[in-house]
Amino acid sequence: MQQYFIKGPAQSPVTVEDKDTLKHMFSVLRLLEGDQVLLVFDDGIKRLARVLDREAHQFELLEELDDWLELPLQVTIASGFPKGDKLEFISQKATELGAHKIWAFPADWSVVKWDRKKLLKKADKLSKIALGAAEQSKRNLIPEIELFEQKTDFLSRLGDFDCVLVAYEESAKAGETKSLVQRVQQLEAGQKVLFIFGPEGGLSPAEIETFENLGAQTVGLGPRILRTETAPLYALSAISVLKELLVSDKA
Amino acid sequence: MQQYFIKGPAQSPVTVEDKDTLKHMFSVLRLLEGDQVLLVFDDGIKRLARVLDREAHQFELLEELDDWLELPLQVTIASGFPKGDKLEFISQKATELGAHKIWAFPADWSVVKWDRKKLLKKADKLSKIALGAAEQSKRNLIPEIELFEQKTDFLSRLGDFDCVLVAYEESAKAGETKSLVQRVQQLEAGQKVLFIFGPEGGLSPAEIETFENLGAQTVGLGPRILRTETAPLYALSAISVLKELLVSDKA
Repeated sequence: MQQYFIKGPAQSPVTVEDKDTLKHMFSVLRLLEGDQVLLVFDDGIKRLARVLDREAHQFELLEELDDWLELPLQVTIASGFPKGDKLEFISQKATELGAHKIWAFPADWSVVKWDRKKLLKKADKLSKIALGAAEQSKRNLIPEIELFEQKTDFLSRLGDFDCVLVAYEESAKAGETKSLVQRVQQLEAGQKVLFIFGPEGGLSPAEIETFENLGAQTVGLGPRILRTETAPLYALSAISVLKELLVSDKA
Repeated sequence: MQQYFIKGPAQSPVTVEDKDTLKHMFSVLRLLEGDQVLLVFDDGIKRLARVLDREAHQFELLEELDDWLELPLQVTIASGFPKGDKLEFISQKATELGAHKIWAFPADWSVVKWDRKKLLKKADKLSKIALGAAEQSKRNLIPEIELFEQKTDFLSRLGDFDCVLVAYEESAKAGETKSLVQRVQQLEAGQKVLFIFGPEGGLSPAEIETFENLGAQTVGLGPRILRTETAPLYALSAISVLKELLVSDKA
């Protein structure tokens, strides 16, 4: 069933205001009175709703569903600004794979230089991509997008996390394979993880040192060398395997 | 160091013949006599080589390296024909993530209809993408691409594998989380796995039944609904975590 995110607290009846959402509901899906959809408000709970009045864009909430598909850890992905539209790609795929937030920062070896205006425009585009991917993958939350103009602002936020991991190509090359598993297995449900990825050229030795001085740990992502836009997908999949598949008693 | 795949058995000196490879070596990288690269012949062993004669495109092999970055399981990805250029995307990313072979087949709910001519052209394009991704990710092997015109030909190959897994959205929705881990953990190094993925609309119930009758098992890929092009990346990452990170004593 089609799912839509609606800003604000849950209320019934609710009038949908967002233009893109309305367009999809009534022009693409062509909802009629009585048709049902899932509405997800700020609390992340999915609620079955039906169209009360299609002219007034009004829905009645019918019942709360109990499915919660969020990763047990709150994982923030932070990519050094990559070239072209790779952040668009990362935003879509990281959302599908359960990222809690998606950040990017100007890394030493980032080739692109994005000013404030460009970053605002880009963040707006990425937010829309994350919204679409969150609806499609049936997430309870839409990942927040934050693009840092200054690396110092990014660095000042590392202390907000229970664990900071840095994907490091040299770890992969050195055959380092245990750190990721060990650190992730130590974390408990609800804890916050920041996972940092370099741009195409990787992270500079100075950056690695800065991150380590701020408490971060470098980890390998298996033996193969992954592109900058592929590494976050491996990392999120790995966290899902370790925290959702290996620990579950559901099935 | 730059890596190139060279067809044929290892020999020294070796004359490189492939035009695209030569162009990259001498026009892009501008190799000079004495410069070193990695050459990988049909046996998958990486060999350090140096330019003997740049006019004659001749290299001398110096030594064998012992790094072997292939997944311990031989994983073949088989996607129901997806729309647009998603197979290009899957070929690049699945190669980075260690796929042994990349297949695609006309699934019941595939929207695209590709005839023999189109499939030959597409396979050629995908092979080039896989080659580039294999070099970039430092693979020992280039995944073979095979696009099936007839589903029956695809089905007749299921018996070649030690294990056939089917990514099934309904498994994810039902909260099924253990089958993937259980099946992958049972497999031993060198065994062959076929991992089947549906197109955008998913696999039809009839297809699922056919696969199951041929010995396949449906598995979930975590609780979130993944797009057709994202599911193979999760699956390969999961196999890497289970077979490379969790079992290793290297680090």
